[in-house]
Parts: sequence; structure tokens; C-alpha cells
Amino acid sequence: MHILLTNDDGVFAPGLRAIRKELSRLGKVTVVAPMQEQSGVGHSITILDPLIVKQVDEEDGSTLGYAIEGSPADCVKLAVLELMDRPPDLIVSGINSGANAGINVLYSGTVAAAIEGAFFKITSIALSLELAEHFDYPRAARHAARIIERILANKPAPGSLFNVNMPAHSRGEPKGVRVVPMAVGRHGETFERRKDPRGRTYYWLTYAPPYHLEGPATDVSSLAEGFITVTPLHFDLTRHDRIGEVSTWDWNGPK
Amino acid sequence: MHILLTNDDGVFAPGLRAIRKELSRLGKVTVVAPMQEQSGVGHSITILDPLIVKQVDEEDGSTLGYAIEGSPADCVKLAVLELMDRPPDLIVSGINSGANAGINVLYSGTVAAAIEGAFFKITSIALSLELAEHFDYPRAARHAARIIERILANKPAPGSLFNVNMPAHSRGEPKGVRVVPMAVGRHGETFERRKDPRGRTYYWLTYAPPYHLEGPATDVSSLAEGFITVTPLHFDLTRHDRIGEVSTWDWNGPK
Repeated sequence: MHILLTNDDGVFAPGLRAIRKELSRLGKVTVVAPMQEQSGVGHSITILDPLIVKQVDEEDGSTLGYAIEGSPADCVKLAVLELMDRPPDLIVSGINSGANAGINVLYSGTVAAAIEGAFFKITSIALSLELAEHFDYPRAARHAARIIERILANKPAPGSLFNVNMPAHSRGEPKGVRVVPMAVGRHGETFERRKDPRGRTYYWLTYAPPYHLEGPATDVSSLAEGFITVTPLHFDLTRHDRIGEVSTWDWNGPK
Repeated sequence: MHILLTNDDGVFAPGLRAIRKELSRLGKVTVVAPMQEQSGVGHSITILDPLIVKQVDEEDGSTLGYAIEGSPADCVKLAVLELMDRPPDLIVSGINSGANAGINVLYSGTVAAAIEGAFFKITSIALSLELAEHFDYPRAARHAARIIERILANKPAPGSLFNVNMPAHSRGEPKGVRVVPMAVGRHGETFERRKDPRGRTYYWLTYAPPYHLEGPATDVSSLAEGFITVTPLHFDLTRHDRIGEVSTWDWNGPK
């Protein structure tokens, strides 16, 4: 099996290194990841600039992979179309430092890389570890590898897409695995308004803790309870249930 | 009615000016848009940098709106939470220079701004004009305003989300309005490999023309036929139809 590994924290991120070690037990791993941290880039792609590619070596002279001056989605596109001999059998994105649950999924470069993989009809898995003072990536990588093995054992259709979140080390041993939908409520995030030394107003986006913990189980609530969450995703944003009704609207009607 | 107008081509883009003129017939328009062009930024948000806000004035001294050193999604978030007295009744994003149809919807900053609006449960409409040598924004804005009026006349639930694409001027008068799903196939885009004067390899993403024009009507095929397309969108990426089956997988099973 040939695995493409990418992330949005950059090619040198410890989360990528930890999962790479585990994945190398499952097959050949090719790393193609952004040169710099790309948090919050969502599904951005580079259209107006050229993509610079650098080969990255380990201290011992062996090849770590490729670093791209671009987004996680750029990495997947370039890896599949140009850098790899043939398309990979599996794409793994992560392990991200911080959960990608709820509507954060839409902001996530980690998940966007997996979605880009699904565009190519390659099974793709996004991995994220809940924010904490201390990230135990080796532990998260062991859990993630086990989840990936279970996914592969169930032979998902090519292009299947999964979003996996792992609870922080501080929550203790995970309570188990829950297959849950993403939460769709808005965060409680706000902006902090400040003045710079020249009197200009600027804003910082604040961090919002987990929210919407009541109601049916979601990725956000289950993660807060200490479960590993698995969410099968798709990328068809059409509201198919609305097409029929909206079609009947009088589009050429009077003003 | 108070309308928030944003885009991803920047506060000075002609597409924004054209639709602003039309929208001002429907209500009070507040412009909050990126300072610079943000094409391909997808649903990126600014987490690690402060957001600088500048008030932008017209030549005659009247206020055009606010320019943000950030993404379209940043603009909506900041407008709703900080810059406007109360949340707007409607959010319009565009008119983008270039269609946002098919899986391009996922890459689109224009659509991301509308999705961000839907997070706030505000009805949001993304507007895009197909790529052409000559963009006739005033004409597109007249068509778009008519579509917006029809949407509002049908009193959609708050937070409803619509993606509207308009055919290029060169295709003649639009053949009508079609309510269609987004195409989910991959583009035929590739990379062009080049060497810089120092011998480094770099890649340009190529432009791919419309594709997947056979089969059931989609936004991509209908636009290519010369129709204005309207696609009701959502942002729940969960594959709800897969939750049940994936739940039955033996997550704690043997390796």
C-alpha cells in the first residue's frame, strides 16, 4: 500500500512525524506537506502564484518528503498529479494540533486536504488531536493507526472520506470510538478589539471552548466526553432536499 | 432591510460596485470586504494574525465601507460581530469574476463568505459571473438583483444559503434560470512544470474549461448552456446515510 501523508501544520510538525512512524508499518509513506504552518486556511488553493517544491531530507540524509510553499489542498493536488509515480491508495492528513470538529471542519486545512483526496476518488482520512497544554502525539498516532486499520478492514468505497478527532491526553485513556455527525452550531467565538501604538484599531479572533454539548451526540460533544470520534464526510454542498421546491419558485415572475 | 455586501475580489472590485448599486434599491448596504484579491482562499479564516480594519471612502468623501486585511469569511465574522450595529437581514457575496460552480464551490472565498453568513443563521447569497474576456458587471448585477428579489419573495428560512452563477456576456442573453445541484466531478486541471532562472522546479496550476457536460443538469453544465444557475447549499459535511453502517464496524476489533 502506498500512503500519501500531508497536514496543515507543516512538514516538520511533530504530529506528522508521529503518524508517519505508525503508517510506515502499513505501507510506503510519501510525505508532501506545506513548508509552513497553514492553520485556518480551509480549502484554499494557490491559483495566482507558482508552487515551489523543495525536497526535505532527514539529518541522516534519507528523504523525509516534499515541502510545498502552498496549502494542504495544493499538496494533495501536486502529489497526486505530479510528485508520485501513481496515485496513492490512501491519503492521511494530520495529526493536526487541535481538534477539527463542528463547523471548524469547514475552516480546516487538515480536512480540506482529505476532501481534495476524495475529489480524486482516493480514500482519505483527516486526523486531529484536541488542544491541550501537552500534546502526546505518539499516543494519538497509535490510536489513529488503529482507527485507520479498522477503516481499511471494512473496505470503504474509493473516495470515502473520514474525519477523526482524538481527545487530549489530559482526558485520560479514550473511552472508546463514537461514529457521530459533525456539530453544525456556531462557536461562541468573539473578537478582541485593540489599538496599535499608532492608534489603529485591530481585532484578534478569540478561542472559543467546546459548545453545544447537550442534545444528540456530535463530534464536539463526544470529544468533550473523552471519546475518539469518527465522522464520515462528503463534499456535495447541494441541499438536494430543497432543489424540488426552489425549482417551483417563479424565477421569471413580477418584481 | 440591511444588507451586508462582501466578496473575495477585494473592496475595490467592479463586481462589488455593480451589485452594490442594485442592492441599494433594496435596502441599506454595508460593504465589508477584503483589502486585496483573495481568489482561491476557500473558507480560510485568520487565526494567527490580527485583523486590520480600514474605513474606505469614495472620491466624494462618502463612505464606501470597510476593508479588512483578511479573508471573505473574516469579513463576514467581523461585520456581524463587531462592525455592524445589528446583524444584517441578508448577506450578499460577489459578484465574483469567474464562476463558482462544481467542486470549485469548495475552493471559493465568495461562497465561503456566504457559508459564514449561514453559520449566523442569516440568509446568504453568493454571486459569480462566468469567466470571459469582457465582464459585463452592470448586466450581471441586474440579473443578480432580480434573482435576489425572487429569493426574498419566497421568504426562505433564516440561514438559507444560495449559490448563483451567471453566464458570460459572450453567451448572449441568459436562457433562463435553472435550479440545479453542484457538479461533483473533478476538473481536468493539471500543473505546468517550469524551471526558474536558478534551476528550481516550480508549478503553475492550469485553468480547466467546463467539464462533465453530459448527464443530469448541474451548475456546470447549465451555465455552459447559457442558463443562470441557482443552487441551494448547506454546510453539513456529515454523510448521514453512512453513520449507521460505519457505527457497526468493529472499532475495538483485532488488528
